[in-house]
Order: sequence, then C-alpha cells, then structure tokens
Amino acid sequence: MVDCGEGTQIQLINYKIRRSKISRIFISHLHGDHYFGLIGLINSFSLLGRKQDLHIYGPAPLQQLIELQLKVADTTLCFDLHFHTIRNEGILVEDDKCIIRCFRTNHRIECFGFSFTEKKKPRRLLADKAAELGIPVAFYSWLKSGEDYIAEDGTVIKNETVTAPGPRSCSYAFCADTKYDERLLPHVTGLDMIYHETTYLDHLRDRAELRFHSTTRQAAEIAQKAGVGRLLIGHFSSKYDTLEEFETEAREVFINTDLALEGVTYLAGV
Amino acid sequence: MVDCGEGTQIQLINYKIRRSKISRIFISHLHGDHYFGLIGLINSFSLLGRKQDLHIYGPAPLQQLIELQLKVADTTLCFDLHFHTIRNEGILVEDDKCIIRCFRTNHRIECFGFSFTEKKKPRRLLADKAAELGIPVAFYSWLKSGEDYIAEDGTVIKNETVTAPGPRSCSYAFCADTKYDERLLPHVTGLDMIYHETTYLDHLRDRAELRFHSTTRQAAEIAQKAGVGRLLIGHFSSKYDTLEEFETEAREVFINTDLALEGVTYLAGV
Repeated sequence: MVDCGEGTQIQLINYKIRRSKISRIFISHLHGDHYFGLIGLINSFSLLGRKQDLHIYGPAPLQQLIELQLKVADTTLCFDLHFHTIRNEGILVEDDKCIIRCFRTNHRIECFGFSFTEKKKPRRLLADKAAELGIPVAFYSWLKSGEDYIAEDGTVIKNETVTAPGPRSCSYAFCADTKYDERLLPHVTGLDMIYHETTYLDHLRDRAELRFHSTTRQAAEIAQKAGVGRLLIGHFSSKYDTLEEFETEAREVFINTDLALEGVTYLAGV
Repeated sequence: MVDCGEGTQIQLINYKIRRSKISRIFISHLHGDHYFGLIGLINSFSLLGRKQDLHIYGPAPLQQLIELQLKVADTTLCFDLHFHTIRNEGILVEDDKCIIRCFRTNHRIECFGFSFTEKKKPRRLLADKAAELGIPVAFYSWLKSGEDYIAEDGTVIKNETVTAPGPRSCSYAFCADTKYDERLLPHVTGLDMIYHETTYLDHLRDRAELRFHSTTRQAAEIAQKAGVGRLLIGHFSSKYDTLEEFETEAREVFINTDLALEGVTYLAGV
C-alpha cells in the first residue's frame, strides 16, 4: 500500500480489499492526507488478530509518532511491526520477483516517490517441442531462463525453438506530492505507468510552484520526457468542481493520460 | 464536541453540522476510537481558513501528540489552538450559561467523563402585568432574576405576580469508557440525561470487568442509582449483529433507556 490517509479502512472495506494482502506500507511524507489513517489501520489489524508481519517505510518521525500513539494507548500489537526509516534514495525491497525503490520528490517537506519494478519473468516452455527434440526434463528450468540446450553430441538447440516469451514484466512509479522537477526523470524513465500529481490546472502554474505542487501540463511533460507508457493523474484541488479539464489539458501534452479515480483499477503495462 | 474518532469529519458533513459551532473539543482518553480523527479535523479547520479559537481538553500526552504531528508536517494553523491538559476532576469551563466538569472513569488507561450543566435560566417577564402594576422598565432584569419589586411607598409586588418560570435548565453527562464503578454516581446523580457505555450484553460481565468495559445492566444500574432522567447506551461491541437485546436488557433495570444511534439527536430534559 502506498500512503494511507484518514478513512483508508473504510475504503478497504468498500472496495473489498483483503487486509492480509497488505504486507508493506510505504508513506511518502508526513502531510495528513497521506498518513493520518495509518495508526487506525495498524490498530484494527491488531484488533482483528493479524499474525502476519507488517513493514512500514517512511520518513524519520513516522516511527516516533506511531510508537508514541501505541504507548499512550497502552497497546501491545499481536503482530510484528517493522519500521524502515527512509533516509536516502535507493532500493527499499528486493526479492526474486520485484524491486521497490524510493526517490526524492520536490515538496514543502521531505517527500519520497516509490517505483515498483517486476523482475524479468521466465520464458514459457513449449514442453511438447522440448520432448520431441529429446531434451531431458532436468534442463527445463535452464530453458526457461533463456539458455540454449547443448546435447552431449554437441548439437545446439536454440532457446527460441523450445520456448516462447514469458509474461511481460511491469513497472510503475508513484511520484507523490511534488512540484515540477526533472530530477524525477532518471527514476521513472521507460516505466510502464507512472502516477504524477496534478493539484492544479495549468493556469495556476505560479500557485503550483509556490505550494510545491504540479499542474496538468507539468505532469504530462514529465511523462512525455520520461517516455513512460501511461500517466495517471490525481491529487486534484478541491476548488475544482469537475475533473474533465484535467484530462483534456494533460492529454494535449501526453495522450496516454487517465484520471486516477477512486475505486478504479489501472494495470501497468496493459 | 466530545471525543473525535477517525472519520468524524465525514460524519460532520453527512449530518450537516456546522464546523463553526465547534469551539471546544473534550477527549476522554487516548484510545484510537476516541481521538484518531482529531488531528485531521484540526488540519481541515485550518485549510478551510478558520479564524475562531479552538479549545482542546484531554489527558496529558494529547498536546504532545498533536503538536508533534503539526511540527513534522511544518503546519502553521491559521487559528489559535489552546490545549487544556486534564489532570484532576473538577470544573473545566464555566461561563454565564453553563458549567462543564470532568470526572474520572475506571478504564484501562486514564479516562475522564464530562458533565454539562446549564445554569438556572432567568424567569420570563409578564410585561403587560408589570406595566399594569406600574413597575418601571429599569427593574425588569431584576424581576427576571426572581426578586420581588418594592415600590417607593413600600408596597411589595411578589415576583410570581409578574413573572413565569423560565425555560428549564438541562444537564447531561458523558461517562466515557468505564467498567462498572459507583464512584461515578456523585458526578451524575440527578442529571437529566447520561450516556453510559454498554460494550457487552450482561452475560459477558466477566469479560467486561477484565476489559474495563460495562454491560447493559451495569449501565442501567448506574442510571437507576443516580436517579437520572434518561439513559443513553452505546459503544456496542462489533461482535453483536443486532442491538435490540441491548435495549431490552437495560430497560429491565432502567426503563427510560435508549440506544445511542448514529445521526440521531437526543435532547436532555425532554
């Protein structure tokens, strides 16, 4: 989960998201709309008897805040809570399937974006073909990793003959709250999908700059310069009654833009 | 406002409660369901440009918690926030209309209930009658306070002749989270209405005791022993699917009991 504003628990229920699927929570920065729901979520996890560990990644004072709130309530959680204080850009999590990195954005207080990159997935084995060519089963995982097969007599069977491309790996970045800043580019270039905030329409560029936020066109310029597959925009100022113009303005610069709407699932790389 | 759980802002909107009517917030104790919504409410007040002072009353660590959350967000509020740390039982607020007191309840952590007592209201002047008897207008406020009128010639006009009783004054207490404890009685005796928690039905008396909560009959016993006008019960455990039995059980001991239901207004002294 990325960020956790007040009322996140209600939305988890509304959208039928299983709590057990949440093992790591990444908090971009300590403005309330991004973390006021975290302590309540942690409490509820415990009241509901969670056993699974929970990992929290966020700026330095977050651990102090959460621990103080647990202490004054005399709460002992029934699961292990692990804090990972973010101090620098870099890799936060790496396992055999995915790498999660953080990078600085340019906001009024310390703020981090997060990128999620699936590792290359194994090629799909054409088992009938491999059997027909007499390749022993023991070599199948070797084939899936993309290697050719060399028989005992030196015959080479090219990998492409017995495998097909695996499912493609996807990548996504959440650029958090930020003013327009091209230092984001190296962290998001070439990704399948990024989320970039657009607090304002483009006529309020000055206000955006002043408040460390971005406009529609600025988000779209980042997407376009980074050559990403798709742009999601959000964090719209409540001063606007409708969102149509956000989409229109951003699409003038980067056509593959969508509004990030509550309750909608967007698939990276599709 | 008494207590402020997560999502209070949404309910203020749902029930069309004007934010400007909230000038004092009383927090009974630092379990999350009683205060996790406070920091968000304070933030929103500021975002919406509140000018009016806000007074917060609560146990000691509350000020530290709220100030830490404002500090890490680099937030400067646009109104004055006054903390009043509750350390002892006694009067929290007194003006010409009302006295607000706090008293200890018996919960797992330090916890306070609050009572709200309207002061005696002025008697209603029967202006026609007063004029007919030749009482000068300058003496009218004197009459409203219940005094007789003594004319220059020594004639006494009894107050009851020229005034009628004013509107009655109401009193209410919120007994917060607590196990059954008769030490509450002196603080709530004779009040028009009290709220007392009933986390469990009466068959779970042992569990209630263990968890510093109360049952239906226990709340009703407090109401009955305190001779209050009306009892509101709430804080029902989520383990129960329906609330009917809460009402039934409590009414067996104290007939004038009602379930405290979300969005319903209950008038003390009516």
